[in-house]
Parts: sequence; C-alpha cells; structure tokens
Amino acid sequence: MGRPPRLLCCLFLSLSLAAVARAATRHHEWEISYQFKHSDCVRKLAVTINGQTPGPTIRATQGDTVVVRVKNSLLTENVAIHWHGIRQIGTPWADGTEGVTQCPILPGDVFTYTFVVDRPGTYMYHAHYGMQRSAGLNGLIVVAAAPGAAEPFAYDGEHSVLLNDWWHKSTYEQAAGLAAAPIVWVGEPQSLLINGRGRFANCSGMAAGACNAAHPECAAQVFAVVPGKTYRFRIASVTSLSALNFEIEGHQMTVVEADGHYVKPFVVKNLNIYSGETYSVLIKADQDPNRNYWLASNVVSRKPSTATGTAVLSYYGGRSSPRRPPPTTPPTGPAWNDTMYRFKQSVATVAHPAHVEPPPPRADRAILLLNTQNKIDGRIKWALNNVSFTLPHTPYLVAMKNGLLGAFDQRPPPETYAHRGYDIYAVQKNPNTTTSNGLYRLRFGSVVDVVLQNTNMLDANKSETHPWHLHGHDFWVLGYGIGRFDPAVHPATYNLRDPILKNTVAVHPYGWTALRFKADNPGVWAFHCHIEAHFFMGMGIVFEEGVERVAELPREIMGCGNKSNGH
Amino acid sequence: MGRPPRLLCCLFLSLSLAAVARAATRHHEWEISYQFKHSDCVRKLAVTINGQTPGPTIRATQGDTVVVRVKNSLLTENVAIHWHGIRQIGTPWADGTEGVTQCPILPGDVFTYTFVVDRPGTYMYHAHYGMQRSAGLNGLIVVAAAPGAAEPFAYDGEHSVLLNDWWHKSTYEQAAGLAAAPIVWVGEPQSLLINGRGRFANCSGMAAGACNAAHPECAAQVFAVVPGKTYRFRIASVTSLSALNFEIEGHQMTVVEADGHYVKPFVVKNLNIYSGETYSVLIKADQDPNRNYWLASNVVSRKPSTATGTAVLSYYGGRSSPRRPPPTTPPTGPAWNDTMYRFKQSVATVAHPAHVEPPPPRADRAILLLNTQNKIDGRIKWALNNVSFTLPHTPYLVAMKNGLLGAFDQRPPPETYAHRGYDIYAVQKNPNTTTSNGLYRLRFGSVVDVVLQNTNMLDANKSETHPWHLHGHDFWVLGYGIGRFDPAVHPATYNLRDPILKNTVAVHPYGWTALRFKADNPGVWAFHCHIEAHFFMGMGIVFEEGVERVAELPREIMGCGNKSNGH
Repeated sequence: MGRPPRLLCCLFLSLSLAAVARAATRHHEWEISYQFKHSDCVRKLAVTINGQTPGPTIRATQGDTVVVRVKNSLLTENVAIHWHGIRQIGTPWADGTEGVTQCPILPGDVFTYTFVVDRPGTYMYHAHYGMQRSAGLNGLIVVAAAPGAAEPFAYDGEHSVLLNDWWHKSTYEQAAGLAAAPIVWVGEPQSLLINGRGRFANCSGMAAGACNAAHPECAAQVFAVVPGKTYRFRIASVTSLSALNFEIEGHQMTVVEADGHYVKPFVVKNLNIYSGETYSVLIKADQDPNRNYWLASNVVSRKPSTATGTAVLSYYGGRSSPRRPPPTTPPTGPAWNDTMYRFKQSVATVAHPAHVEPPPPRADRAILLLNTQNKIDGRIKWALNNVSFTLPHTPYLVAMKNGLLGAFDQRPPPETYAHRGYDIYAVQKNPNTTTSNGLYRLRFGSVVDVVLQNTNMLDANKSETHPWHLHGHDFWVLGYGIGRFDPAVHPATYNLRDPILKNTVAVHPYGWTALRFKADNPGVWAFHCHIEAHFFMGMGIVFEEGVERVAELPREIMGCGNKSNGH
Repeated sequence: MGRPPRLLCCLFLSLSLAAVARAATRHHEWEISYQFKHSDCVRKLAVTINGQTPGPTIRATQGDTVVVRVKNSLLTENVAIHWHGIRQIGTPWADGTEGVTQCPILPGDVFTYTFVVDRPGTYMYHAHYGMQRSAGLNGLIVVAAAPGAAEPFAYDGEHSVLLNDWWHKSTYEQAAGLAAAPIVWVGEPQSLLINGRGRFANCSGMAAGACNAAHPECAAQVFAVVPGKTYRFRIASVTSLSALNFEIEGHQMTVVEADGHYVKPFVVKNLNIYSGETYSVLIKADQDPNRNYWLASNVVSRKPSTATGTAVLSYYGGRSSPRRPPPTTPPTGPAWNDTMYRFKQSVATVAHPAHVEPPPPRADRAILLLNTQNKIDGRIKWALNNVSFTLPHTPYLVAMKNGLLGAFDQRPPPETYAHRGYDIYAVQKNPNTTTSNGLYRLRFGSVVDVVLQNTNMLDANKSETHPWHLHGHDFWVLGYGIGRFDPAVHPATYNLRDPILKNTVAVHPYGWTALRFKADNPGVWAFHCHIEAHFFMGMGIVFEEGVERVAELPREIMGCGNKSNGH
C-alpha cells in the first residue's frame, strides 16, 4: 500500500532466488535384485533395493529435485517404481506406473527417475508392475517443509513407521493363483511387518533352516524416546491386502497429517490406516519410562488370522533395556468388523483450519463407479460399472503422445450405473463382466467428482474395504456414507468447507466415498484400489487430461509395445 | 554316360521342383505362461507353453520351415527360446539365445521365430534366458527324413522320450542362491521326469495338498509296443544338472542316431545321455508280452540322491494292463561313479559308415580351454582359461551389426592356458578369477579345433562331467581322453576317419574332449556347458564368424541394451 511497488518486486525476486538457491538435488543410486531375507524370521526371496527391504528412505526438502538411478539386476524380470503421493507435475513419465506412464525397465537396464517433491509430507514408493510390490520393493519418502515454512504443530523428534503384510509364497504363485480358474487364493498374510520386521508365529513348526527366530533381520524395531518430549510418528501402509489398525500402547496419538496434508488435530487411541495412506501423529512421551511399550499393527476389516505385528517403544534413561519385550500383551486393536469405528475416523479427518484449501464449489463432471466383484470365464475379477480393467500393452502415455490409436480401446468406459433400485447388499444376479483398457478423458482444467460405491461381493453378506489411490493428484474427500449413494440426495451433504486433501481414501463396506479433483496435471493417471490383488483383478480406471501439453517424452520409457523397436 | 546331358538337367530340375513343392511351413502359436503343475505329483508353478510342460513336440520334415509365434504371457518376466540343434543357417537372429542373438521377449510381446530344419533328426527346444529352462519351458523337435531319403535303419514305429530333472524350488531361488556368497546350493533334484512326469519319493511326507500322488499329471507315461515289432525311441535330455543313464528293462538298445547324425550301430544295455544330447535307439519288442517293463532314468556322474525316474513299456495284446506297474524293481543303472563305463560309450559313438562326413584334415586354429571352478569375491564361478563368462547387456549380434563397440569387451579371451606341468588333479592354488564378455572372432570359413580340458573342482578329489553345446554348428568329435591333454601328443590320436558330428558332447571327469568345426555359418554363437547353473556361473564362450555376411537384422530382436529406444 504505502510500500513502493519496486521494493515489493525486489522482495519477491530475492525470495524466489533464495528458494532456487535452497532447492537441492538428491541423488540416489539403486540396484534392484533378489536376495534371501528373513523379514519375519522365515527365509524368503525378496526384491530388494541395494540389498534391503524396505528400501532406503528418501529424505528431501520441499522444492528439491529427487533423482533415482535405478539399475535392474533382476535376472529375467522387469521393474517399475511408483512415487506414491508425488504428483509429478511436468514429469508424468516419471510416475513409474507400468502400462500407464512407462514401459518396464529391463534386466541390465538403468532408468533414471527425476521429479520435484513440491509439497512437504509423508509419502512412499513401491513397485508398480505385476504384483512386485508385495515382493518387497517399497520404502518411504519424507519431505521436510521448506525452511521458514511453519507447520501447524511442534515436536521434538520424529520416527518413521512403514507397515506391511507379508507372505511366504512368491508373488508369482500369488498372481498365477489369482488368474487360475478356480481361483487359488494365497490367503491371509503370514506376518505383519513394521519397518520390514515381523515374527512368524509358527517359526518353530517349520522345517530346519527355514525359520530362524534369532535372525537379526527380524529383530523387532526399537523406537527410542526421551521422557517428556513430543514425537512425530510418520506412518505409512504399503500392505498388499490388509487394512490395519496401528497403536502405540499407553500413548494417545494426535493425528496431524494425512497424505501430505495438515489435519485438524484429533486424538485417537489407535489409528486405522489403509494401504497407500500415510499419516503423521504426535505422541507425548509421558508414561512410566522404566518399562517398554508395544507398537502394534492389527488386521481390521477382514477377519484376521495373522498375529499382531509388533515393535517396541523404549524410553531413554529408563530402567528397561530397549530390547526387553514390554511386560504386557500387545494391543489387539478394535473389533475387526467394527466398520463404524473406522468410518468415524475417516469422517473425522478434515483439513487443518489454517491450511484449508477450499474445493471448487461445483464439479463439471461426476463419475459414479459401482465397485463389484465379478466373473469372466469362471475367473474372479473386480469391475467398475461392470467393466474390469486391464492394462494395455503399450503404455497410455506413449500411445497417446504418438497417436497410436490401436494401442487401447478408444471407447470410454461408462460414467455411471443403473443406480436406481440397485441393491448393494445383494449378490449380483449376473456377475459376468467384460474387460476393457479404455480410459476416461477429462477436459483439461475441469473439476471432476468421483463417487465410489461399494457393494456386496460374490459371497453373500460380505463387503470389503477398498483403499482407492489416485496418481498425479490430490483430491478433496467430500463425503462418506454407508448404503447406496443417491445422486439426488447426497451431494447436498458434501463437506465443501474443510475437506481434507488426500491421494488415497477408504471406501468402507457397503459404503460410498465422494471425492473431487481438478484435472490440471497434464498426463495419464491411474486411479485404482491399492489392494494389489484387486488392481491385478481389474479394480481400477485411468484418467487422461491435457496430454497434448505433456512435453516430449523421454525415449527411455518407450521400449515396449507398439512404439518399441519390436514393432 | 550315354544319357543326353539335357535329360539329366531336366531330371535335376524336376527333382528340385519336387523338393520345393514338398517343403512345408509348419505354423505354431504358443502362449507362455505360469501354471500350477504336478509334474512329480508336487504342486509347483511352472513356465508352460499353451498350458503344458513339456511343450508340444514340433514335428516337421527335412527342408520345412518352422514358424513359431511366441506370445509372452508371463506377468513381469521376459523369455527367449533356443532351438537346440537347429543350425539357423541364414537366420542367426532366430537362435533364441538372450544376450547373444536377441533381446528377450517382453511380457505382452509377440516374437515370431522362423527357421528351416535342414537336417532330419531329433532335436529339442528350451528357454535360453536366465535359468528359465529349468522352470519347465522345453520340448522336442522331431524332423523326419525327406521323402525318398533312406535312413540306414528300419523300424515299425517310434516313440519319444524327453528326460529332465526337477526341483521344487523356483528358478529364482536357485539363481539367487548361486549368486550369493556363500553359495546357497539348491541341491540334487527332487525328481527325474520322463516326458514331464515323475513321482516325488516323499509325497506322503509333505503338507496336505502340496503333493497328490493320484494327480493325472504325474501318472507314468506308458509306451505301447506290438509284439515282434521294432521301435525307434528318440531320446533327449534337457536336464538342468544331471547326467543320466536311460534303460528299457529287458530290452537291448541299438544306438543309431546322435544329435541328428547317423551312428555306426552299437548295442547297449543302457544309454548314458548328457544334458543337451539326443539319441535314437532301436529296440525289438521281443520279450514276454504278458508283463510290463520299466523305462528307467538314473543319475550318473554325481552321487545320486534322487529316485529313479520311471515310465512303463507295455505290449499290445499282452495280459498285463498298461497301467500295471512292472513286477520288478526299476533298473538302477551303472555305478554312478563308473567314469570309464561312460567314457567307452562316448568313444563308441562314431559315424555310420554310409554317412561319414569326413572332417577337414587339419585346423586353422586350435583353442585349448581349461575348465575350472573359481571364485570371485567369495562367489563360486566357472571359468575357461581363468575367465568367467558374463553375457553383455546388448546382444552380440545386435552390437556387432550396429558397430556398438562399447557393448562388450573388445579384447579376445585367451586361446590357451599354461598347460605344461598344470596339475589337473589338484585344487587350484589361486582360484580367483575375472569375468569378461569378450568373444572369439573366427575367420569365416576357417577350421577350428577346440579342446576342452576338465580339472579338479574347488573341493579335493572332485571333477564333474560337463556337456558342452555349440550353437549354429555341428562339430566333429575327434577324440576323448582322461588326464591332461598334451597338444604335442594327442592330436595324433584324433579320429579323422569316421568321427561323429554332434552339437553337444561330454567332457568326462579329469578328461578332455577334442572337437573340430568349420566356421561357415555367419552369426554369433554361444558354446557352453549345458548344465544350466554352470553357464549361469560363467562356463561358456562365444564365437563370431562372418557377421558381416548376416542379412539385415529384424527390428524385433533389438528391444534392449544400447540399441533399444531406451538409449
């Protein structure tokens, strides 16, 4: 106002120069290979990064450029890595989604992912090819707030917790079983891992040499805290199947971040977390420092048959050795089938008052997706509006930038289903479905609503939780419901005031979830259930927006399908 | 001579026209996928062709063109298929050797192998990528003699026998174990298969559902014969590890073909057969038709810990049901460590007098290869003249036709070793070795001798049998010896009169084998131990000859390495 415009201009310039000077490039050299690991004390071949599973945590500061040079040293198997929660603005070819944004990386090949981490928060990475994620290729991305950017909470220290579920059978066996008729289901996980460490409950019952309960790779992780201090726990779930409940025995948690966005703080005894989600919670180290406490991960939403995954919280200076098991039984979490308990926690997760990014007041387009379990030729599939998704042979991004119209089905999938009178509580009368690799083309800059409607499965009285993950965007979570979504009624109940932005959201049993996003990131983006088997069985769709604005593609992503040398 | 030349000319012309008219094209459509199989009654994920392991037998007539359209439907894994024994004259890019003649076939890709089967005989095919062969991708190629071309023996019917060894652990586990330090060795096979069928000895000791002794996929194959008739048995071994001895109880065998070449007939009670070899034997159905007889496959050369692989010979019209087990114990073969027994059978295998193709009287070049077991950084390797072979990232054929000099080591590997005074019976004093992907460039049309010298392994008093297989050629087997080969002495003992032509030959424990071939097939050709783990650990070399004469390469083989879109 009184300030001369020139000074203002100079101030902006110097700020932006400072930002440029601050932004660093974080280089990583990764070699992907199979190694024998004892993640839950049982010897298993795992896909590792530099010999580790989980892989190294990527640490960066908002605005940094992350460069990961991936060398595929698997023998006969390709690979692709997705940077889950990173929007890849301007770099849609670095999203790592095989079949959507790139061809896979061949054995012996090196592929360099380069992208900017433009927002602070907790994210993750994992393989996005076949069912490779569950073979062990996963890890955390932690982006610190830019210096000077205040976060709406304070803490003295931080810890990271990566939750996973773990099978002794290979992903090949899992995938071949899912594709078989009749289906051969791998079953519930053998173990739950915290930071890649678990403890198979039946170790002593295994053949000699197969399980080693004393193996250092399966020693429980110890999280040390100083009495009286406050800690931020960054928690991510990369499970293949399981919805989890996470608890730190004796310590209430204040939820402050979800998927990289600040949450209006609320206190919970334990946290429900679905595959693909991240949270930050604060805990105060205010309990008796002379004993240890359990960190516990329990299966919810499916009837559990897997032992509680555990780690240990230990106080510095207390009289208990950090390695000593707590004197209690690990928490077992809420009743696995208490849907309302989880539903309420979902609803409670809204934006922090000081960090509300209001959604556009209305959408240009609304897509209503009926999630059903189906059959094709006797094989069990998942479908949206009765279309089961398949990946094309040529990645969409490559096909669309090169005008390869024959590379995928040019007919768009259905926008809605016959929702009037549809009984979501009944087994579908005719479960037969069809497959398609068609995609939804979105007008660039338009506002899109998606409502995900959950239903009964092929078995009576059964409906699961599906965590849906959107690539390339965050979306506003406008509402949740249990029962059938009615487009004439429920939009009026949407939270347009302070909805949280997320990249992954739960659709509860027999429930619906409504979300909104702006189609303003040029590229092709997958949107799918983050349960690995469900996406493999067709539970996903793909959006395209502004692909004509995407810069020239790197040749490195094109080594397959119709655009490769092979055709 | 009184015949007018014009008539002779016309006769030739019409013969050759007839030959052209006769040559057929044999089309095959193959889909490669993982399927659960019960090859030895134990449920295991196998790489299958059209759902089968072994794959379908390719049947053709000499001069036919075989076209195999391979669709890779593995989820994340590439594939390449080698046509073992087919010389690929004019089609070196169709040899199917990943890293040598082609890039692997990606999931979802289709690759068409087209080649001429120019000689009659018994051949095989199998994966030639990583250790995929042992995952089940293998089968037979049977090429009938051209109509009118008389074979030097007669028979009334024929049967085919494909021998294999079988593990319950996946090839991933096998390969990861071989590459580990210290090595994790998968051990001896669980079963020996005849035509893909075996019987795990400890079925009842396995977990419920893991082994089903009544599964039809592991029911023993029955070979039916008519009393009094003579049968040709075509026998091939595609084992990953095992040297085998094959016997048909109560029936002497007359060996008449080896690797597609007619053998001076000799009679054996049982046949030693090494991985990569094929034989035809004749048997007379002249025994009591009212009982059945065992076909038996036994491990030799390594101390066996695998039960005899069995099938059944049954007489038509006899009083025994074809399914009834013979009343005897299956033959157990010769003593596993009777090297001389096997050595003599190797030496006895010479060309049929009416089908001798005399070798060139002398070689232009002689390469002496010391086969040793070595170590690199604590990892066990195999080496030739102290160089352990590794495959380049860009296939040689692609690299050389495109002048990509940086794609592999341009320095040729050593031609010989310090053989004077070398103690082949001792453990090497310094087992450390180096790796290379250099190759041997051969003058086009030159005659090359190779002598393979076997030695003691890293353990004292141990030397194995190595079956060496040459791609793109047959070679004359000039001689075998036990002990150290002396270039000043042993060449004088070479059989230049009637050596058999083969593509695979045994190098016996502590022995040497000398062979000669003409470098007259433009291309790049692997020459390696056919034990899959040994090649994986470096036991191979590569020859190049006349690569400048190779026609333009199909683009389909180039989708990897320095020549792909990715670089």
